[in-house]
Amino acid sequence: MEKDVKKVAEVEIRVRYAETDPMGYLHHSNYFTYFEIGRTELLRQQGLSYRDIESRGQFIVVVKIQCKFSRPARYDDLLTLRTRLTRVTRARIEHHYEIFCDDILLAESDSTLACVDQNGEIQPVPEEFSSIF
Amino acid sequence: MEKDVKKVAEVEIRVRYAETDPMGYLHHSNYFTYFEIGRTELLRQQGLSYRDIESRGQFIVVVKIQCKFSRPARYDDLLTLRTRLTRVTRARIEHHYEIFCDDILLAESDSTLACVDQNGEIQPVPEEFSSIF
Amino acid sequence: MEKDVKKVAEVEIRVRYAETDPMGYLHHSNYFTYFEIGRTELLRQQGLSYRDIESRGQFIVVVKIQCKFSRPARYDDLLTLRTRLTRVTRARIEHHYEIFCDDILLAESDSTLACVDQNGEIQPVPEEFSSIF
Amino acid sequence: MEKDVKKVAEVEIRVRYAETDPMGYLHHSNYFTYFEIGRTELLRQQGLSYRDIESRGQFIVVVKIQCKFSRPARYDDLLTLRTRLTRVTRARIEHHYEIFCDDILLAESDSTLACVDQNGEIQPVPEEFSSIF
Repeated sequence: MEKDVKKVAEVEIRVRYAETDPMGYLHHSNYFTYFEIGRTELLRQQGLSYRDIESRGQFIVVVKIQCKFSRPARYDDLLTLRTRLTRVTRARIEHHYEIFCDDILLAESDSTLACVDQNGEIQPVPEEFSSIF
Repeated sequence: MEKDVKKVAEVEIRVRYAETDPMGYLHHSNYFTYFEIGRTELLRQQGLSYRDIESRGQFIVVVKIQCKFSRPARYDDLLTLRTRLTRVTRARIEHHYEIFCDDILLAESDSTLACVDQNGEIQPVPEEFSSIF
Repeated sequence: MEKDVKKVAEVEIRVRYAETDPMGYLHHSNYFTYFEIGRTELLRQQGLSYRDIESRGQFIVVVKIQCKFSRPARYDDLLTLRTRLTRVTRARIEHHYEIFCDDILLAESDSTLACVDQNGEIQPVPEEFSSIF
Repeated sequence: MEKDVKKVAEVEIRVRYAETDPMGYLHHSNYFTYFEIGRTELLRQQGLSYRDIESRGQFIVVVKIQCKFSRPARYDDLLTLRTRLTRVTRARIEHHYEIFCDDILLAESDSTLACVDQNGEIQPVPEEFSSIF
């Protein structure tokens, strides 16, 4: 129960003017930046940090990501991003993301991450992730 | 034959410093901006332009996108982006993208686009796309 | 007194991974995006919004901006941005910005804004700004 | 004569959709990214590269930058960026930038750079710059 709660982080993100496009919509490339914020906050609520992982010479890279956009977000909208750790194996970390505005789902995404060292060689997933899971 | 050629555009993109991250890699969110450049150039080689489509009050939005990242790109790398129009229906436009550096495939992506008017209402796909296809 | 307080807004901004560069530093172009957040929040604390101004067909554009960078910010740093409205004339709006991390000044900036309509024609500064000032 | 020519680089940059804002204008923060492209190309035309400088553990940081925006750029505009090395001292590198669209000046900027090592300690300006100057 409690363990499950730990796997989800919610963070509020306000859409910046520079992130919107001539339609007045949040440009789709920025959602992927938001998802990264979600991953950072999910670790932080465990008292862990990506910065510490990187300072050990381990880097988390995105191997695969997909996103489905249902409705647009606009400048100054206050969005809620829900990030869930869905699967951790020895070599892969999977997250699911949902972005809401006023409880309406705008976008949904899934990502697969891996860990590499400074030379780009694949490393085992840091224990920070398995400990959450 | 000739028709098929029209459906593919190749464009060179040099990785900017501001687009790379502490690993020294092109940040994954920027690939989606690159794919958009590919779509723009694919239309341009037909003598068409997104800007003209927008000036008629038609906006092309990304409905779904996925990307698989195989190898990193680095600052100042000169990348080749190959964009292919793979399917056009009355309501959807599908593209496939491949990004290469020195003939090595770095990333592959598929997107589904739709057309909306200024109020976000779904519109038929502009004839520019069916004419290519 | 009270009036003076109204002219300053403080907002916290956490540095995103995608905003940092191979040095591990917040890329300097992102400071200008942060300053825009400061302007938005300064208006908001008056109960006003840029979005409303834009919906009336008035657009605020940057005419001139300068920034001095003293120390770097890093990924995941929690920064404090202090935005001050320093001068409002009939045609110009001036702000001063300071960015701190742990009470250490990282950067300082000054900007001059103007107001244009949808055709880019110069307009008088919206009353929202003179009312703050 | 020839020496003077070496100090100026011209590069064409096409405005990306993701870089424009709800006004349909190139967002001002992106100009600073463009100027960085200009600096990269100015070095490249000497057969030199920032990437090589960085691989020696020397990093070029922006100490001060200012920009004056006269006219907007729009999505798909093909801009010409002219970058000039204006001054090199033992500790500072100064550039001047002009951005044109169809020979009309849109923006003008000046920057001051310094060189630091991986710990952020100030270093002498790399000889690459004095050799140009």
